[in-house]
Amino acid sequence: MSQILSSLRELLGEDAVLAPDQIAERATSYWDQRPMQGAALLRPRTSDEVSTILKHCHARGISVVTLGGLTNCVEGTVADRKTVLVSMECMNRIDEIDVVDGTATVQAGVVLQTIQEAAAQRGLSFPVDLGPRGSCTVGGNVSTNAGGIKVLRFGMTRNWVLGLEAVLADGTIVSSMNRMLKNNAGYDLKQLFIGTEGTLGIVTRVVLRLLPAPATRNSAMVALTSFDKVVALLKCLQARLGGQLSAFEVMWGSHYRAVTAPGWHRPPLERGYPYYVMLEMEGADAEGDESRFENVLAAAIDEGLVADAVIPQTEAERTRLWLVREDFTAIYEANPVFLYDVSLPIRDMAAYVADISSRVATRWPKGFIHVMGHIGDGNLHLFIHPGKPGDHLHHEADDEVYQALLPFGGSISAEHGIGLERIQYLFHSRSATEIELMKLLKRSLDPKNILNPGKVIDVAER
Amino acid sequence: MSQILSSLRELLGEDAVLAPDQIAERATSYWDQRPMQGAALLRPRTSDEVSTILKHCHARGISVVTLGGLTNCVEGTVADRKTVLVSMECMNRIDEIDVVDGTATVQAGVVLQTIQEAAAQRGLSFPVDLGPRGSCTVGGNVSTNAGGIKVLRFGMTRNWVLGLEAVLADGTIVSSMNRMLKNNAGYDLKQLFIGTEGTLGIVTRVVLRLLPAPATRNSAMVALTSFDKVVALLKCLQARLGGQLSAFEVMWGSHYRAVTAPGWHRPPLERGYPYYVMLEMEGADAEGDESRFENVLAAAIDEGLVADAVIPQTEAERTRLWLVREDFTAIYEANPVFLYDVSLPIRDMAAYVADISSRVATRWPKGFIHVMGHIGDGNLHLFIHPGKPGDHLHHEADDEVYQALLPFGGSISAEHGIGLERIQYLFHSRSATEIELMKLLKRSLDPKNILNPGKVIDVAER
Repeated sequence: MSQILSSLRELLGEDAVLAPDQIAERATSYWDQRPMQGAALLRPRTSDEVSTILKHCHARGISVVTLGGLTNCVEGTVADRKTVLVSMECMNRIDEIDVVDGTATVQAGVVLQTIQEAAAQRGLSFPVDLGPRGSCTVGGNVSTNAGGIKVLRFGMTRNWVLGLEAVLADGTIVSSMNRMLKNNAGYDLKQLFIGTEGTLGIVTRVVLRLLPAPATRNSAMVALTSFDKVVALLKCLQARLGGQLSAFEVMWGSHYRAVTAPGWHRPPLERGYPYYVMLEMEGADAEGDESRFENVLAAAIDEGLVADAVIPQTEAERTRLWLVREDFTAIYEANPVFLYDVSLPIRDMAAYVADISSRVATRWPKGFIHVMGHIGDGNLHLFIHPGKPGDHLHHEADDEVYQALLPFGGSISAEHGIGLERIQYLFHSRSATEIELMKLLKRSLDPKNILNPGKVIDVAER
Repeated sequence: MSQILSSLRELLGEDAVLAPDQIAERATSYWDQRPMQGAALLRPRTSDEVSTILKHCHARGISVVTLGGLTNCVEGTVADRKTVLVSMECMNRIDEIDVVDGTATVQAGVVLQTIQEAAAQRGLSFPVDLGPRGSCTVGGNVSTNAGGIKVLRFGMTRNWVLGLEAVLADGTIVSSMNRMLKNNAGYDLKQLFIGTEGTLGIVTRVVLRLLPAPATRNSAMVALTSFDKVVALLKCLQARLGGQLSAFEVMWGSHYRAVTAPGWHRPPLERGYPYYVMLEMEGADAEGDESRFENVLAAAIDEGLVADAVIPQTEAERTRLWLVREDFTAIYEANPVFLYDVSLPIRDMAAYVADISSRVATRWPKGFIHVMGHIGDGNLHLFIHPGKPGDHLHHEADDEVYQALLPFGGSISAEHGIGLERIQYLFHSRSATEIELMKLLKRSLDPKNILNPGKVIDVAER
């Protein structure tokens, strides 16, 4: 082990290499506070240094796990004591923001919010947005194809990556730093590294597409009395706001009551409704948008779709409303809580939630299930607590969640990925033929299986 | 040869198999009217039949080329006399349009316009749109990642494919008919078949995402006096129309004058301007959009950005304006005409067009170059005529176009793909490492090199 450390220090310099005792001072992830494990943690500064690391590890058959902001929910970056960790924390430079063509060229370790703010300072906007914006990195966003709160309008991270640079398992640097919106010159190689969770290469640099910043933003939180009305409101807003609806985030009543329980967030609306939606429109008409938004909302109230609504009057009020949606610390007072991320057709959501709720109630009468989600994207997040301690209950909860999903043909992972946690359930969403094709890709690009091994698909021989 | 025919007839039935003399009754493509060549032309009706064909050809090492609507511009479907052609013309069924979740499930041979119309009948919209909409197929759109006139707002075909079914070289059917907006359960395999021009598999079925149909559409054709003003107008409309600008199609003056020459389209605006733009906004506000559009346009005129403008008053007038942009038959009165499709940063376009125009004028004083494009996407189309007959002059024109592009780091193919025509220029846009990685993919998925061999990249041993 010390052999690995000393040779890596020779290659990269003392500062760039942390030893196991220093690694153990860090938490495994946001979700797992146990000490991080690894043979060494490396902090490269350039793609060339990443290439050096991979050449070294490839020649010796050493496993490599890449670390971004450690907010991954599916054990996507866990490692054992023999694994070399490559942290992108020193590759956090914004190289360029091109205002004319609307692109940002960044290193993979830049934090999402840093990009959002740098774009905003230049009158531009990077439309990928998610709760952990303050800690997640763009490299992590790319390698997990992150979703978030604006997918409804803008799509997932994949849509906003124009080009990227990645280092293959053997250290080859593949630079596809395309800046063009359109480029059909040969295979679109960047797709190999988007959403493949670091198993086919390490993303080191990215060219992102930016948009003009919206001139207006109008928000509201509303309460509704049935899921049918939630769906009707979504369709109504999509039609009447002409593609400018940028967020439509639903909380089931129990979720809302949990995060607004006494001592937690002050409830912006009465706590007795079955559904709450945080919605937002981004537009360009500084004169007309506010009244258009309020008229559409007033019509939805008149038509009986919306039972109650609150419109923030200041940016601080808006932030407080969003915290009700984004901050679920209250739920994690219970222990353990298992988080899920399924997608299924909107029409089936009410039936699915009813089924899984009844399964949880039957199995764990003292437990709970809270539901929220990006329903416009067909995506629900479930928080399940079994009502008693025991991480070993995770698999029981998995079985319930994924069994209940089967009849609806949904996906076991809308946006969180597979990582290690969901690998044994992949067959619920993917056929044997699909999994074989994934394995063919993995074996072709990483024949020694050193890149984030055991994640997404398991190609190790048994 | 007759051996191939008879065994294929046994497998698929008489009607499904055309012999070389019947094939020769067809034209090679829209762009090449010479008789089509092939050992057999097969018309499968199902993915299973495509699988049967590929198993048969794979076992015997027979090359296979897939045919859609034959509007490909880069010799993407040319074949020799030993090649089996698989035409998707009988796989033209729309299986389902799901109005609630906004999806269309179709066979790959459905014509684009058929999908657009079927969606429109249900109050929905499929936002991929391009000139040859009446003949190109969705399978062709997918396998070339087609762009078109609305990329500015909606992105390319890749963005609108939720799932697909493809048949691999050995006949394996990979069914990834995802209907969810979000699905990060493992590698996104569909990306292997989007934009890879039929070289990694045959796309047989597709799930497309649909949008609510726009409630309003406002169009105009405008004339401008400088390229700076064209760019300023684009930025102005993108900012003031709040993401609702759906088309911004630029014609350089000489292009406009060619297509509005006496005997061709009646000129909607005076013919002396250096730039013309066809622009369109799609919105949802039936009351407010028209006045908003006209106010923004009036402001652009007041600010001196726009020199003249015409707004169609009827759908027939709108169609006539679009024909000026889309119908370039007039240009093809000259022979030969070579078509290009480059992308480069907007800021460099004026310099690039000046350079290539001067190169053409120098080399071929009696020739011409006409330019139009989707400049919001960074994409220009060039029509070059050398002023004399001679298809052999194509390569001379290629050299000029791609040499002039090099300093700007542009792409030799924004949307048309590589096919056979541009393969020797791929290195202008892609590094040797990228091309090697493309070859690795090709060899991994099609080790016998039977799928559209020789297109995009050439893996044949020499």
